[in-house]
Amino acid sequence: MGAALALAARGRGQTAPNPAVGCVIVRDGRVVGRGWTQPGGRPHAEAMALEAAGPAARGATAYVTLEPCAHESPRGPACADLLAASGIARAVIACRDPDPRTDGRGIARLEAAGIATATGIAAREAERAMAGFLMRARHGRPHVTLKLGLSIDGCIALASGESRWITGPAARAHAHLERARAELILVGRGTLEADAPKLDVRLPGLAHRSPARAVLGHGAAPFGWIAVDRPEAIADTPALDVLVEGGAGAAAAFLAADLVDRLLVYRAPIVIGGGRPGIADIGLVHLEGAHGRWRLHDQRMLGIDRLEVYERVRE
Amino acid sequence: MGAALALAARGRGQTAPNPAVGCVIVRDGRVVGRGWTQPGGRPHAEAMALEAAGPAARGATAYVTLEPCAHESPRGPACADLLAASGIARAVIACRDPDPRTDGRGIARLEAAGIATATGIAAREAERAMAGFLMRARHGRPHVTLKLGLSIDGCIALASGESRWITGPAARAHAHLERARAELILVGRGTLEADAPKLDVRLPGLAHRSPARAVLGHGAAPFGWIAVDRPEAIADTPALDVLVEGGAGAAAAFLAADLVDRLLVYRAPIVIGGGRPGIADIGLVHLEGAHGRWRLHDQRMLGIDRLEVYERVRE
Ligand SMILES: NC(=O)c1ccc[n+]([C@@H]2O[C@H](COP(=O)([O-])OP(=O)(O)OC[C@H]3O[C@@H](n4cnc5c(N)ncnc54)[C@H](OP(=O)(O)O)[C@@H]3O)[C@@H](O)[C@H]2O)c1
Ligand SMILES: NC(=O)c1ccc[n+]([C@@H]2O[C@H](COP(=O)([O-])OP(=O)(O)OC[C@H]3O[C@@H](n4cnc5c(N)ncnc54)[C@H](OP(=O)(O)O)[C@@H]3O)[C@@H](O)[C@H]2O)c1
Repeated sequence: MGAALALAARGRGQTAPNPAVGCVIVRDGRVVGRGWTQPGGRPHAEAMALEAAGPAARGATAYVTLEPCAHESPRGPACADLLAASGIARAVIACRDPDPRTDGRGIARLEAAGIATATGIAAREAERAMAGFLMRARHGRPHVTLKLGLSIDGCIALASGESRWITGPAARAHAHLERARAELILVGRGTLEADAPKLDVRLPGLAHRSPARAVLGHGAAPFGWIAVDRPEAIADTPALDVLVEGGAGAAAAFLAADLVDRLLVYRAPIVIGGGRPGIADIGLVHLEGAHGRWRLHDQRMLGIDRLEVYERVRE
Repeated sequence: MGAALALAARGRGQTAPNPAVGCVIVRDGRVVGRGWTQPGGRPHAEAMALEAAGPAARGATAYVTLEPCAHESPRGPACADLLAASGIARAVIACRDPDPRTDGRGIARLEAAGIATATGIAAREAERAMAGFLMRARHGRPHVTLKLGLSIDGCIALASGESRWITGPAARAHAHLERARAELILVGRGTLEADAPKLDVRLPGLAHRSPARAVLGHGAAPFGWIAVDRPEAIADTPALDVLVEGGAGAAAAFLAADLVDRLLVYRAPIVIGGGRPGIADIGLVHLEGAHGRWRLHDQRMLGIDRLEVYERVRE
């Protein structure tokens, strides 16, 4: 399943409205087919892996990061039917597809065809990787990551507005990779006007994966940008994963609307002191209300900066 | 040397103006004597360990975290002479004593007595543990730790001033242990007036180790408190280690004076948003001037909070 998840990651940011799925077909301990959702969402991972495996799929085990779809479309047959016809003996599935056209029916169809199934293998990792798709299927909105480049004392700029650079090259490269995983990047109008950011993916080989750009504010958007007049309006875009890159006003607006699912803090080992805070007023009335909302999920060094990844606790 | 360092830690905060030293005497693979600087600075670690070892010291190896002193005092003989008289065969020393009355003379006296010496073993750890003593010997001022309990976005309180609690019980217990290692705790007048903090060590068995208290400001200090009218004035106290516990004004004053050697951030996994920043204006003019000053030396989880320890880079 690890290999299937790694393949799935190749499609991240390119498959909307479909999820980025990965599939590995193994027979007698050898990989006979690999697939991942292609740009635009088709072919699906299973179709690609079965195509590669050909007759070698007979009797094999298919590892797939999401329940195979049970619905035909003009763009191709249902993956559950393709798998059934291929003669595979076993399907190992990370998590169920909440899409009402599938939601258990894909698994039922495999079992009806005599294929043994196991579900829930590496389910957490798969759910995290498909968080945008699952959020949309369950709550009708994209998954939102708020990215902040902060000093030790939580500033994004000096009082003068100077903000280049807080973090170093390794942190900036990582942030560009995060961009490539989203379909939409958003900044507030203040940042657009102060920095005129390009918001593209400046990494070798990934430049073509720059996502769409949006600005939060009440006026018109520049040519080629999407205008978002309130945080909730991101639900009206086709994006599965949205990356909010500040500034303090936009960050606060998304936090106040409880629309941030993941917080990426690139923490530089510097003290600014009396600078511009990274997050403006979010309407917190008592400290008690701030606790229990965020869990430190991951952290690592990126050069001399440290990445802190917090996830919103929603149980 | 690890055992000697652990013994040395017992004296921390209790030995000023002497450093907290540890000593272990080993003969034929067995520990025959252990000592650490006693409250008030005497007996010294070596005297205590030799006393415990008695005749077993003959031919043994002494591990000591600081060069044995070469100067007699009305309170006791020089440790270098005590060691020479004891008949030990070897002395392993973590670091040299910059006190001009010793500074190499302790080692020279051991060698003149036919004792083999090795210096620089675990020197970094020993220097860190005696940072206050070494800072005073070299620069005539105490070692200063600035402690901050911060949210992800660098706040120490809501805009309303509410600041209880940012961090949880494990972080607070750790902060109390840090108090026990200092001879002086300082807060700004704003914090004194807002919170009337007790600044004592509220840990079982350590209550008697509460350090002296100081307030930074321009008026009189409360009874039992030391008045400090500018950051540099801490040099006039007898403290080796000073812990500055905020608020934002006092933190900024010590940072602006470049008198902070170590930054302890207890980072709670909460977002405050528009709260009171932990560090006020430090007079930074350009971002460039903020870089290269701090190095993340250590970090660990304390319950759900994370401790970040930064050290001032002074090369
Ligand atoms: N170091 C970093 O990582 C980093 C990253 C980004 C930005 N920055 C810095 O941050 C500064 C800009 O921050 P900022 O806080 O001034 O600006 P901002 O957050 O980029 O934009 C603020 C604007 O967002 C819009 N907005 C906010 N809440 C909204 C809501 N609920 N609904 C609709 N629109 C809303 C408003 O636009 P309207 O006025 O049109 O209503 C508001 O003026 C710049 O100095 C920039 O350099 C630093
Ligand atoms: N969460 C936490 O860990 C934490 C910890 C501590 C405090 N706090 C909060 O922080 C707030 C207080 O912060 P604050 O910034 O208002 O006050 P503060 O830093 O405690 O004290 C400010 C005062 O320090 C003195 N001062 C500052 N710089 C000086 C200098 N260079 N020389 C001499 N004196 C100097 C001045 O006193 P004079 O006016 O007498 O000149 C100034 O008014 C409170 O709300 C408190 O609850 C939170």
